[in-house]
Amino acid sequence: MSRAFNFCSGPASMPEAVLAQAQQELLDWQGRGVSVMEVSHRSPEFVTVVEEAEQDLRDLMAIPDEYAVLFMQGGATAQFATIPMNLLGSKQQMDYVDTGVWSQKASKEAARYGEVNIVASAKENNYSKIPEMAEWRLNPQAAYLHYTPNETINGVEFAWVPETGEVPLVADMSSSILSRPIDVSQFGLIYAGAQKNIGPAGLVVIIVKKSLFGNALPITPSIMNYEQVAKQQSMLNTPPSFAIYLAGLVFKWLKQQGGVAAMEALNQRKAEKLYQFIDQSSFYQNPVDVSCRSWMNIPFTLADDKLDKQFLVEAEANQLLNLKGHRLVGGMRASLYNAIPEQAVDALIEYMKDFEQRCG
Amino acid sequence: MSRAFNFCSGPASMPEAVLAQAQQELLDWQGRGVSVMEVSHRSPEFVTVVEEAEQDLRDLMAIPDEYAVLFMQGGATAQFATIPMNLLGSKQQMDYVDTGVWSQKASKEAARYGEVNIVASAKENNYSKIPEMAEWRLNPQAAYLHYTPNETINGVEFAWVPETGEVPLVADMSSSILSRPIDVSQFGLIYAGAQKNIGPAGLVVIIVKKSLFGNALPITPSIMNYEQVAKQQSMLNTPPSFAIYLAGLVFKWLKQQGGVAAMEALNQRKAEKLYQFIDQSSFYQNPVDVSCRSWMNIPFTLADDKLDKQFLVEAEANQLLNLKGHRLVGGMRASLYNAIPEQAVDALIEYMKDFEQRCG
Repeated sequence: MSRAFNFCSGPASMPEAVLAQAQQELLDWQGRGVSVMEVSHRSPEFVTVVEEAEQDLRDLMAIPDEYAVLFMQGGATAQFATIPMNLLGSKQQMDYVDTGVWSQKASKEAARYGEVNIVASAKENNYSKIPEMAEWRLNPQAAYLHYTPNETINGVEFAWVPETGEVPLVADMSSSILSRPIDVSQFGLIYAGAQKNIGPAGLVVIIVKKSLFGNALPITPSIMNYEQVAKQQSMLNTPPSFAIYLAGLVFKWLKQQGGVAAMEALNQRKAEKLYQFIDQSSFYQNPVDVSCRSWMNIPFTLADDKLDKQFLVEAEANQLLNLKGHRLVGGMRASLYNAIPEQAVDALIEYMKDFEQRCG
Repeated sequence: MSRAFNFCSGPASMPEAVLAQAQQELLDWQGRGVSVMEVSHRSPEFVTVVEEAEQDLRDLMAIPDEYAVLFMQGGATAQFATIPMNLLGSKQQMDYVDTGVWSQKASKEAARYGEVNIVASAKENNYSKIPEMAEWRLNPQAAYLHYTPNETINGVEFAWVPETGEVPLVADMSSSILSRPIDVSQFGLIYAGAQKNIGPAGLVVIIVKKSLFGNALPITPSIMNYEQVAKQQSMLNTPPSFAIYLAGLVFKWLKQQGGVAAMEALNQRKAEKLYQFIDQSSFYQNPVDVSCRSWMNIPFTLADDKLDKQFLVEAEANQLLNLKGHRLVGGMRASLYNAIPEQAVDALIEYMKDFEQRCG
């Protein structure tokens, strides 16, 4: 059968060309008669895979030399603990911005290790608008400020980068990394679970300023110690080698597509098409303030939620998969990560039009 | 080209039938038009994958109901910290048996969280013989006793299970799980990195007695808290879904092969063939005491280590891959995990014979 259009929020759609290459060489990689997942992570051929993946990511994001790039395990959720363990040092306090479920999860986990200060919360706006930075109660003594540039559940995204002065800025870019250019030098640490814009689940990428090394708490497991992982080029133990290999293929695919600037243009176009369609409709609705609508995750509701089930069943019959919204928000959600082609958005809008005409 | 015989110590050879199935359905899983790595871990179809993987492992190992089976990330190295964090509770001390590099790594990491007592060490035998249990200095107040049933580097394996009374027994079975039947009820906790006998790197399987829950230190990250992971059926966060899917295929393959009893017969036969050949030769040598020779990892040296390089190059030309020994031991190592067919051992012995005749 043909490939479906898959709007899953994560683990998300991967570029078809990447999967096709992985498929072709799954039993016989580089003519070696073995799979890439069957070779030693310390073999020269696999070390090359890791080195190329790192270099390609550095190229794509223009990562300065004073930043380490780490491939780790445990996803963003492991990082929720790993970050305070590594960055708190002798400080006691950490700043967190609450813009939704994922920033809340991060701050709750951090509270095991120190005092969390919620500098601002979108709660009063029902998580549909990011508080203006002028209202944030920043703590100049904080070890770092953590925020979530894109909240996948509510579909709320920062169109700007917080200015935190001397306090290192930490960002959970799981659902927005590589979707548009950023200036890495504005950040102390960027982390991203792979399963949206990078590759399969089971890998998390860390971009961390090396000057932040040396502050790990004594209880930090070796495997979570950024400095130790960096010293071993992400090979402190056996890495998730197949996931790194796939991430490397995705990075090469991104370069072929024209890099992050090309993705930005595509992602903006895809998102605007869908938002414009939703906004002109009286049947579909998106509640997020226009200033902070996500390019990556677009939640929407139908005028009558009794139609939700029919909408999903018929969508699936049309090869438009995984449009169900998160249970906390309800309705629908279309995730439009890098690997989602523009035709998928066109097909979705066509289907939504047709459904509205028939059922609206 | 044809598949090579791959003696890598890990990430190790996988069953060819498993890779072939994964290859076939990599872009279109269950006729859904998406890859298994592109579906939500909370979708009914993927939850079924996890449930079947757990049930198949329970069947294979006859795991009693009072044990939880967890799929986690970070490999055995993450467990080196996770175990004391979860099991130490109000106790201060832990017992460790030193039989080689891996048990040493485990005990060093545990020392971050409490007092480690080395109850016995194989150091005086240059790690070629496991100390008799009668000589172990057990601490009845220990939170647990940790040992490494098979040491991959030195090729030393316990042919017996330590009897620790009320003190829970913890075993790193990364390189021996599923290679022969064990009685799970003798253990408090079993853990195993996947990349030897289970599947690809990036997954670690935990089998833990539920009565040990409730002792986690407050600094334990949620993602490392066994009780919390168990409550969420290993879905506390996005799991390494493709690795779990492959592990599930390996478990089904193992059942088709006749289960762990069939593996035991095969593994014993493979290992004995190679040890017998080495022992009758005056050119090859294995230094491990006969009472504790590993079935999984068989290190051997050539009479003249100047021939090592030639041996490896010619082996590779004969499609016998990854025979180089660990740098700490030198020489060669053949890892004979479940997925290594008997023909691989026959081919290796034939090659070794030929090499000895030509160069010995």
